[in-house]
Amino acid sequence: MNPSSLALPHVAKLHAYTPGLQPTETGWIKLNTNECPYPPSPRVVQALRDEIGEGGETLRLYPNPKSTPLRRTIAQVHGLREENVCVGNGSDDILNLLVRGFCTERLAAGFTFPSYSLYPVLVAIQDGQSQVIEFDRSMALPAERIAGSSAQAFFLTSPNAPTGVAFSRAEIEAVLKSFKGLLVVDEAYAPFAKEDAIPLLARFPNLVVVRTLSKAYALAGIRVGYALAHQEIIGILDRLRDSYNVSRLSQAAAQAALSDPDYYIGIVEKVKETRDFYIEEWSEKNDWFTYPSQANFIFTEPRNARDEAGPAVAKAAYDYLYAHKVLVRYFPSHALTASFMRISVGNDDEMLVLNETLQAWRNHA
Amino acid sequence: MNPSSLALPHVAKLHAYTPGLQPTETGWIKLNTNECPYPPSPRVVQALRDEIGEGGETLRLYPNPKSTPLRRTIAQVHGLREENVCVGNGSDDILNLLVRGFCTERLAAGFTFPSYSLYPVLVAIQDGQSQVIEFDRSMALPAERIAGSSAQAFFLTSPNAPTGVAFSRAEIEAVLKSFKGLLVVDEAYAPFAKEDAIPLLARFPNLVVVRTLSKAYALAGIRVGYALAHQEIIGILDRLRDSYNVSRLSQAAAQAALSDPDYYIGIVEKVKETRDFYIEEWSEKNDWFTYPSQANFIFTEPRNARDEAGPAVAKAAYDYLYAHKVLVRYFPSHALTASFMRISVGNDDEMLVLNETLQAWRNHA
Repeated sequence: MNPSSLALPHVAKLHAYTPGLQPTETGWIKLNTNECPYPPSPRVVQALRDEIGEGGETLRLYPNPKSTPLRRTIAQVHGLREENVCVGNGSDDILNLLVRGFCTERLAAGFTFPSYSLYPVLVAIQDGQSQVIEFDRSMALPAERIAGSSAQAFFLTSPNAPTGVAFSRAEIEAVLKSFKGLLVVDEAYAPFAKEDAIPLLARFPNLVVVRTLSKAYALAGIRVGYALAHQEIIGILDRLRDSYNVSRLSQAAAQAALSDPDYYIGIVEKVKETRDFYIEEWSEKNDWFTYPSQANFIFTEPRNARDEAGPAVAKAAYDYLYAHKVLVRYFPSHALTASFMRISVGNDDEMLVLNETLQAWRNHA
Repeated sequence: MNPSSLALPHVAKLHAYTPGLQPTETGWIKLNTNECPYPPSPRVVQALRDEIGEGGETLRLYPNPKSTPLRRTIAQVHGLREENVCVGNGSDDILNLLVRGFCTERLAAGFTFPSYSLYPVLVAIQDGQSQVIEFDRSMALPAERIAGSSAQAFFLTSPNAPTGVAFSRAEIEAVLKSFKGLLVVDEAYAPFAKEDAIPLLARFPNLVVVRTLSKAYALAGIRVGYALAHQEIIGILDRLRDSYNVSRLSQAAAQAALSDPDYYIGIVEKVKETRDFYIEEWSEKNDWFTYPSQANFIFTEPRNARDEAGPAVAKAAYDYLYAHKVLVRYFPSHALTASFMRISVGNDDEMLVLNETLQAWRNHA
C-alpha cells in the first residue's frame, strides 16, 4: 500500500515551491534570496536576550496567541489600528491564508507573470483556479486588465519580483477604483521603494497590504510578516490562522525591530545607494538592460564578450558566478525572465566580488 | 461594502478555535494549557545564545527550509530515518496540513469526542466533513467503531485530551489492522505515558504519529512539532507546508532540547509523580472520580461540601479557583466533560496552592 494514495488527488500531484538555495557550507557570497546584507538592530538582540533570560523560563509558556503587543506596534508604525493588523509566521503564512479564505476552483486567484512564484503554488494547494496576467517587456502595470479581471483575489507584488519595478500609488488606486475583488498588494520590498499603498487602506475596504520583516528588517530567520486591512478581512485571517502561529522569540524580535526606525532607515538607505550604483554601472558601463529597481535586488540582462544576450548567456553568467561561489538567481522557464539574473543587493565587499566576477566572465565568455 | 462578503461562504461563517486563556498580568497560577511547570534544558538557552551570537548576524538569513538538522535529530531520537520526519510550526501546523491533504466535504475527517477541540475547527476551515465517534463515560477506546469508520483520516489523541486516558499500543494496532484510512495518532502527551505507537510505524504505512515540543520539552513558546510517518506521507506534508515554516531560533532550541534526554527524563518523572500523587489525593481522600491520566494533566470531577457533583458544581469550583487566581480549564458544552475540570500538573508550590484552594472551596461550597 502506498499511503499517498489516500491523499486528495490534487494534493498527490502537487509540486513543492522551490525556495532559493540556502547553502549550509560557508564561503558563498549569497545574493539569491533578497536577504538584508546587514544585521538586525541591536535592540533585536537585546529583546531576544531579555525574553530568554537566565534560564529560558518563559519559553515553556505559549506565546501571546494574537501577537497583541506586536499588532499594536505595527499599527502605530503605519498609523492604523490594532484591528487592522494580522501577524503571520512570515508573510507566506498570510498569503496562504488569503488564498485559503478567498479562492477556490470556481473563484480564481489572479496574479501577474512574472511575480512571486509562490502564488501559483498556493493556488495549486487549494486546488484553485489561477488567472495569470502577463506583463510585456516594459513591465508596466496592466492596470485595466487587472481591474477588469474576474479574480476573487488578485495578488500584485509591488515592487514586483523578480524585476524590482514598483507601481505607483496612483496606478494601484486606478485598479482599486474598478476592481471588484480583493486586491492584495504584496509589499515585501516596499521599504526600498518611493511610495506604498498603505494610505489607500482608508478608502478601499477590499485592499490588503502584506509586509514582511524578512527583507528591510534583516529578520528572514525569525519568520514574521503581517497583513494590513479592513478589520473584517483581519477577522477572517484570524479565524483561518493557527492560534499560536508566531513564537515568543519571533514576536519579541519583531517588536524590537519595529521600535528602532532610525537604525533601519540607515541600512535601507545604504542598500538603495548600493543598488542604484550597480544599476547605473551595469546599465551604462556594461550596456546591460537593467530594470529600474525599487527593491533590494537588481534584475539585469547580462551580455557576454560578443555582446550577446539571451537565455544561454544568462545561464552562462549564472553558472560562472556559481562556479566562483557567488550565488544569484535566474528564472529560465519563461521568455520574459530567462535572459536575466536577479541579484540581491549585498554589502560593499560582496558587491565588489560579484562585480569583479561578472566582469571577468564578461571579458572571457 | 463589507469586504468579508468576498470570502468563501464557509469561511465567512467560521468560528475561531478558542485557545486557553493566556493571562498577561502576573500573579496567576496557570494550570490551564498543559504547559510544563519546569524550564527547558539549559542546553536550549545555550543554543539560542549561540544562534543569536554577538549581533544577531544569522537572523538576517532564512532558516534551513526543511529543518534538516532537526529532522535528523528527531529521526535519531525515535530510531527512524530523516525521510520519516516532517517538522511543523507547532504540531497544530502538522494537524492542519493533514486535514488539508486528506479531507474534504466528501472525504471525512474522523475523531473522537472528547478529544482535542482543534480538529473540528480545522475541518470547518477545510469546509470538510466530520465523523465524530463518542466515548462513553469509561473512556475506553471504541476500537471497532474507529476501524470500521469510513473516515479518510482519523485523528486519535493518545493519551487523550482532556481525559488523560491513554490507549495501549495493542489497541491502536487492532485499529490499524482493519482501518483503511490514514490513522493520525496525536501523541502530544505520550512522553508522560507508558507506551506509544511509534514502533507500529514500521508495519503500518497509513499511520502518522504527531509529536510536540510544547509539553514534555517545556517549549510551548517556540512552536515546534513534528510528524513521523511513511516517507510518502512526509512528502505530501512537505508539498503542503510553508517552505520556511520553522524559524532559526526554534530549530536551534528544538534540536538542543532533543539532545538532552537526561534532563527531560528528570522533569517528566517529576511531573508524573506529582500527577499520580494528586490523582490519588482526589480519588481517595476527596472521593472525586478522576481518570487514570497518562498525560501531564488531571481530569477530575469535583464534589462540593454536600457531596454533589455535576456541571454546576464543576463551574462553581472553576469560578472559585478563578477568583483566587488559579486558572484551570473546564469544558461545559457536553455531558461527558461538563462535570469535570482539567488541571495541568504544576510544580509543587503551584499544586499546593491549587489543592488548598480546592479544599477551601470544598469545605465551604
